[in-house]
Amino acid sequence: METNIPKISDFPLGEENTGYAQYFSGKSWLAPLTSNKDLNVPISNVTFEPGCRNNWHSHTGGQILIVVGGEGYYQERGKPARKIVTGDIVEIAPNVEHWHGAAPDSWFSHLSIICNPQINENTWLEPVNDVGV
Amino acid sequence: METNIPKISDFPLGEENTGYAQYFSGKSWLAPLTSNKDLNVPISNVTFEPGCRNNWHSHTGGQILIVVGGEGYYQERGKPARKIVTGDIVEIAPNVEHWHGAAPDSWFSHLSIICNPQINENTWLEPVNDVGV
Repeated sequence: METNIPKISDFPLGEENTGYAQYFSGKSWLAPLTSNKDLNVPISNVTFEPGCRNNWHSHTGGQILIVVGGEGYYQERGKPARKIVTGDIVEIAPNVEHWHGAAPDSWFSHLSIICNPQINENTWLEPVNDVGV
Repeated sequence: METNIPKISDFPLGEENTGYAQYFSGKSWLAPLTSNKDLNVPISNVTFEPGCRNNWHSHTGGQILIVVGGEGYYQERGKPARKIVTGDIVEIAPNVEHWHGAAPDSWFSHLSIICNPQINENTWLEPVNDVGV
């Protein structure tokens, strides 16, 4: 079934994120924005359909999220989920287990920055249970 | 004289950028967004009043600009100035002399990422002459 994707930011949508689909609860889209090796700051735009979340996961190098469209949530293990909207920045420390994704009734886009890419590895864990958001 | 600053993005404006004023042709504002040492990707939002440009300069670590509001220009030495708008990304290689700033008739905001911050040093050069934009 064709998905009607609203324009929620001026950043590119990219292609459907099939490479990571096994770690997401719904459809997402991925647009790489820079992968320049000299600059060493890989950035992509990730767009989630309403209600789509990624699994609990962690990054050995850490991650920074820059919200550019819609409304979503960010949660670290053992803490309450935090609503995040356009203009918000999320600093995710190395090895902290967390998830992010769209609010149930909103499309959501954030830029994702892989920190310390030379040493970064991702660990993917279980899907998010109902957390009341 | 009080400056009336329009809201052109959802990112914070911060304080007037007096620390770098000597290298800018007009008023600018600076909002640090993350300076976490473990993540190692310092990001600020920089807002330029219409017509404000920074001097020619370079970074030994390189820089990435993410345009989040308004219209501006980016130029590398020896190349034509390039118009940049919300949603555009600019990759600035290490040691490349360049300037950026607002279009003459538009406020302008970009996120600025300092690349390779452990080794980065900035070199500030002369103001930009009339480049026809």
